[in-house]
Amino acid sequence: MENFVHHIPTKVFFGKGAICHLDEALKPFGKNVLLTYAGGSIKKIGLYDEIMKILNEGVYQVFEMGGIEPNPRIESVERGVALCKEHRIDAVLAVGGGSTIDCSKAICCGRYYEGDDLWNMIKHPETHEKALPLVDILTISATGSDFDSFGVISNMKTNEKKGVRLIYPSVSILDPTYTFSVSRYQTAAGSADIMSHIIEGYFCQIGDSELAEGIAETILKTVIRNLPIVLKEPDNYTARANLMHCESIACSGIPEYGKTYTGWPCHVLEHELSAYYDITHGVGLAILTPRWMRYILKKDPSCTWRFVRFARNVWGLEGDDEEELAHKSIDTLEQFFIDAGIPMTLRELNIDEKNFEAMAAHACEGGRLEMGLVPLTYEDVVEIYKNCL
Amino acid sequence: MENFVHHIPTKVFFGKGAICHLDEALKPFGKNVLLTYAGGSIKKIGLYDEIMKILNEGVYQVFEMGGIEPNPRIESVERGVALCKEHRIDAVLAVGGGSTIDCSKAICCGRYYEGDDLWNMIKHPETHEKALPLVDILTISATGSDFDSFGVISNMKTNEKKGVRLIYPSVSILDPTYTFSVSRYQTAAGSADIMSHIIEGYFCQIGDSELAEGIAETILKTVIRNLPIVLKEPDNYTARANLMHCESIACSGIPEYGKTYTGWPCHVLEHELSAYYDITHGVGLAILTPRWMRYILKKDPSCTWRFVRFARNVWGLEGDDEEELAHKSIDTLEQFFIDAGIPMTLRELNIDEKNFEAMAAHACEGGRLEMGLVPLTYEDVVEIYKNCL
Repeated sequence: MENFVHHIPTKVFFGKGAICHLDEALKPFGKNVLLTYAGGSIKKIGLYDEIMKILNEGVYQVFEMGGIEPNPRIESVERGVALCKEHRIDAVLAVGGGSTIDCSKAICCGRYYEGDDLWNMIKHPETHEKALPLVDILTISATGSDFDSFGVISNMKTNEKKGVRLIYPSVSILDPTYTFSVSRYQTAAGSADIMSHIIEGYFCQIGDSELAEGIAETILKTVIRNLPIVLKEPDNYTARANLMHCESIACSGIPEYGKTYTGWPCHVLEHELSAYYDITHGVGLAILTPRWMRYILKKDPSCTWRFVRFARNVWGLEGDDEEELAHKSIDTLEQFFIDAGIPMTLRELNIDEKNFEAMAAHACEGGRLEMGLVPLTYEDVVEIYKNCL
Repeated sequence: MENFVHHIPTKVFFGKGAICHLDEALKPFGKNVLLTYAGGSIKKIGLYDEIMKILNEGVYQVFEMGGIEPNPRIESVERGVALCKEHRIDAVLAVGGGSTIDCSKAICCGRYYEGDDLWNMIKHPETHEKALPLVDILTISATGSDFDSFGVISNMKTNEKKGVRLIYPSVSILDPTYTFSVSRYQTAAGSADIMSHIIEGYFCQIGDSELAEGIAETILKTVIRNLPIVLKEPDNYTARANLMHCESIACSGIPEYGKTYTGWPCHVLEHELSAYYDITHGVGLAILTPRWMRYILKKDPSCTWRFVRFARNVWGLEGDDEEELAHKSIDTLEQFFIDAGIPMTLRELNIDEKNFEAMAAHACEGGRLEMGLVPLTYEDVVEIYKNCL
């Protein structure tokens, strides 16, 4: 069991009506608030009006920034930082999913960044000792950005997508009812994202950190049980709440305490995909994960034990033939994604092999692919991409 | 699934050698440190010298307060507060188990308490907006005081033992190697305490908060697997680390998120026992828990489902006869405590029924016993105490 540090200062208000804590959350920071969001969905579900009512009653000065992209871009960060400087913003209120929260984290840090080039800040992350405080209201269960310090920002000019350590939100408001209207497609993709956040750390050489292993398995089982319920009954509060609770913890580091960092290989491979093709992150992960699993199991069968544990403890599969169990666990995962309606090939997303070599070369930079349960080379990565066609 | 609030600001350094972060932990607060501990055990294992070396190198001004009791008393709190005032202490460094940390939390709050009577502060807890910061180094896996805001303080003059909300530690240093020398008896009692912290919340009407349920079950299973290893091999790092990781999370509230508060009935009953007889908290809990379980199962068989879940998910018991499974789960728990060498009757602790009625009357004050899976009356409590003889 490896050493770890736990420090998550975020305060979470979880449950129906948790927005009643919004004023209490913002008040300590000041009255000038930048409200950030993506498109019109927060208006459609009435959340925008609910927020504005609370902010108006609290006599906040609200400035708005909509239009944050699904894979948020450096240009949006620049736009937000300019607004913060212009209006002497005291706190950012991000309303939306991981993209909006990620972009807002970068805005909060960028406000006090001393250089001119914000992409440089993303590429060379340091400790952001001074940043604007962030409050968020989550509207989709997926990235876990509400309970971690990371953000992923894209630069479409250079086909780069960088995940970097930015800041923890000061307060996260998690009300599962705001996810009732999330489409089947985005709900399924979000759940694939949650599962990937667990799988990335679970498939590790270290298996003796028993609480972390148990939390990881519980999150996977909870998503596996609740996603099909939600796809049938989008308004099922308990099922939506269970997904939201899982999404928040999945990316927090807690399911990996006592383990070694694996480099999160599927995320490295997926970031290339969405940097080149701007696809939905969770869909990219769902396509890649079973292919990556089959590839590493074949490349180094000594990792079979990990798949056997995955088969037994997560999927409840039985049997003594370990090789068979291992393969069955991957097939079951793939079938689960298919049943959830996720497109499971790159061709369905109109992606061919044209850029695979450039993507693989880029993915191998930084050494993260060498850290995993089975280290991957450039050739391995090209092969895995091809297997996803 | 019920609403919940998560906010645990404590920073945890976990693992072998984590004491290397001590200077970094204390530095922001100032140079005058009150070092609190119980007896000589921290000197015996060399921890005292290790700490003093770091504090001397960091040019801290160290004041000492030893002699904190296993069930820490209000007189110790008074003594600590006086020292803090006299020496203008900037931070308290608690080294020991839950008792030392609990007492130190009360000292930190008492430093700025405006009344004269510190027992009054314990009896009427309010928000302690101003308190000295607390850093702790844990030396036994039991109470979870390193990762919660509670403290339990006793007043032996009035036979009262009160658990109250005080402050979260700013930093907790959890190094499993410091628990290598903990006796078999205290190790077993500590594990019973950890298990009780889970059982108290797990035996709840609410069963749909799936992540919380899974975390609770994982902690129980991890203790059940690792305690016997530690009793055989006291220096087994991994097993000690797993117990320590569990103890820290067990009392944090996390295993109860989304559930209703049960009032923690066994703790209410046990606090009477140790207020009257100054027994080891974990031993009292181990004696009470199976008797409480049998009693509520008999009183209201509609709670059988919860015992069945406990039987299957925690103990891995199989079978279709739910009543049998329920009873078997309790027998298995009791046998587990017996195997761990815990005295399992009050007679073994020289306790007879003399004070049962007074204790029961006292336990019923405050209404916590009405909140549980099966509410308890005065008569119920007397009966449960008798069943423990």
